[in-house]
Amino acid sequence: MESPDAPQQTDISNIGEFGLIAVLRDKLGEPSDDDLVSGIGDDTAVYRVDDDRVHLLTTDTLTEGIHFDRAFMPMEHLGFKALSVNVSDIAAMNATPRYATVTLGLSQQVSVEMAETIYEGVKEACDAYDMTVVGGDTVSAHALSLSVTVVGEADENDVVYRSGAQVGDKLCVTGDIGASYAGLKVLVRNRQQLDEQGEDFQPNLDPFSYVIRRHLAPPAQLKTVKDWADAGVTPNALIDISDGLASEVHHLCEASEVGAQLYEPALPIDPETRNTATDFGEDVNRYALIGGEDYELVFTMPEEDLDALDPQSYTVIGDIEAPEDPDHPVLIQRADGENVPLQPGGYDHFDDRA
Amino acid sequence: MESPDAPQQTDISNIGEFGLIAVLRDKLGEPSDDDLVSGIGDDTAVYRVDDDRVHLLTTDTLTEGIHFDRAFMPMEHLGFKALSVNVSDIAAMNATPRYATVTLGLSQQVSVEMAETIYEGVKEACDAYDMTVVGGDTVSAHALSLSVTVVGEADENDVVYRSGAQVGDKLCVTGDIGASYAGLKVLVRNRQQLDEQGEDFQPNLDPFSYVIRRHLAPPAQLKTVKDWADAGVTPNALIDISDGLASEVHHLCEASEVGAQLYEPALPIDPETRNTATDFGEDVNRYALIGGEDYELVFTMPEEDLDALDPQSYTVIGDIEAPEDPDHPVLIQRADGENVPLQPGGYDHFDDRA
Repeated sequence: MESPDAPQQTDISNIGEFGLIAVLRDKLGEPSDDDLVSGIGDDTAVYRVDDDRVHLLTTDTLTEGIHFDRAFMPMEHLGFKALSVNVSDIAAMNATPRYATVTLGLSQQVSVEMAETIYEGVKEACDAYDMTVVGGDTVSAHALSLSVTVVGEADENDVVYRSGAQVGDKLCVTGDIGASYAGLKVLVRNRQQLDEQGEDFQPNLDPFSYVIRRHLAPPAQLKTVKDWADAGVTPNALIDISDGLASEVHHLCEASEVGAQLYEPALPIDPETRNTATDFGEDVNRYALIGGEDYELVFTMPEEDLDALDPQSYTVIGDIEAPEDPDHPVLIQRADGENVPLQPGGYDHFDDRA
Repeated sequence: MESPDAPQQTDISNIGEFGLIAVLRDKLGEPSDDDLVSGIGDDTAVYRVDDDRVHLLTTDTLTEGIHFDRAFMPMEHLGFKALSVNVSDIAAMNATPRYATVTLGLSQQVSVEMAETIYEGVKEACDAYDMTVVGGDTVSAHALSLSVTVVGEADENDVVYRSGAQVGDKLCVTGDIGASYAGLKVLVRNRQQLDEQGEDFQPNLDPFSYVIRRHLAPPAQLKTVKDWADAGVTPNALIDISDGLASEVHHLCEASEVGAQLYEPALPIDPETRNTATDFGEDVNRYALIGGEDYELVFTMPEEDLDALDPQSYTVIGDIEAPEDPDHPVLIQRADGENVPLQPGGYDHFDDRA
């Protein structure tokens, strides 16, 4: 038996999460399944189930102390969010969800009533997204966790990958961004104040109700998928925002072998998100670019196709361009006119602005 | 927001894991999906993908400190076992695995090399079971964990449920049982001796190599599924042994609304498992009945169909009978001729024998 203390151990932080995924993917080798359309590397896997239909498979876990804080995460919202983050991956392939499995990791502190409340949120998500929980498990765990797998479906020709962006496409985003991160900021501050002031603390969260809701119970943008089908248009490339807009645009550009020019003043930001950033004395564009967990969709489409869509349903935030500088495939023009490289984690010189 | 300290919290131990699953299942209500053949309640979910083909979906998690001890679980075996336990659920529906997603929960102590070694085991399992990893994730976690989801496939008419046992069927099991538990006993003792004696300890695990292997890297019984197809026979009811034979036979009888008569001397037990129990001064039948993690298949079949099978590939351990006493649907006749009720966790009076 090998020892877990064997020599030459490399810390995962040395290569990062995406580096590790690349290493593990290499370990598995090239898949050889004839019906597999797309394996590791996009928001979901895609495989054929008959001549023109595909299924899509994705999995995501939320763990207490890492992805949520039980002190401010209502259990019902936890159930809803665990489904949403998976459904968002299905939507990010221009597909619809069908079946889910839910595995509940139970720590000692979890009661029957808490588990039931989590499942109320699961049920609410199933009703909202028209899908069915078909299985799962309850397991003992060190911390409360919810692992969800979702099977989606689509016509094979309708599936949109992150790799399809074309030079000349408009770069667009649904809804508004940065709200989830703003909500998290408020919740963390609220908890700190509660810890410090105890029962004397009278929180007033009313001015932040939208951003808090966006953090705790984000909806997946399935309606957008339906709107595109109704309008008879299909994006060229598509990805959802889980890690933050800057990171996702980089993934999309890398997979599509293109560059992008973004316009900072065009970023769609809700007034409440702006007010929250002002309240914290921070740059709201940072929230929008690197905040994460928005679960909006980023897509690219020729301008003429955009005309078929409700203009309220999306915002053009930039253009897909030929990649000029391979080290800086994504540029962002700021309000003052300066055009700077956008790093996956934000601006090159974000730190001296925040 | 609700408080996690709300009143009237019921400890999950009050209703048990199966009680909790029943509560959560009720919460979700009856599924209404036309293509869903079987949802929560069997080893996997089953749904139609075309006129006569179904897919099967199952998920299982192994967590450090709960399902395995990193001190004696080689990382390669961990990867293999995490796939095996899921493939075993697919085999327990008389189906074959096709695709898997693997989510690696990474604690601080996990290095790049350890993750790679885990994936060597994942790859080995994919090759052994002829399946493909199509996705997954790496997530931060409090403890090392491996969450796997497997999609399997079968003709709809070939799928076997735990609910199909018929009075008059022979109750059978593949391979041998109790070995995994015997291996666990040896590994735990070995670790304790190492802790106590430090570097002076010279373990000799050679006499236990089979039972240790059965615990650390159990194979799923896919070959049996193939043998049945080749012989042109199908069991009436089928379940795999994850929680222990006694528990699984109860699940099968409850779902099928039948009783069972087992014969203790017929239980297939490897000589090394017997020697291990003797070494510990324990009853080997206890290992076989409640040990768990054998991942053999329990099936029921009419006697005439059994004639088509290789007699080396299974053991008849009892008969399916009409249920007489609803409180004791399963009886076991011991070597001395006494016929006693078998509880899901073992004999009624197991404690005074062990």
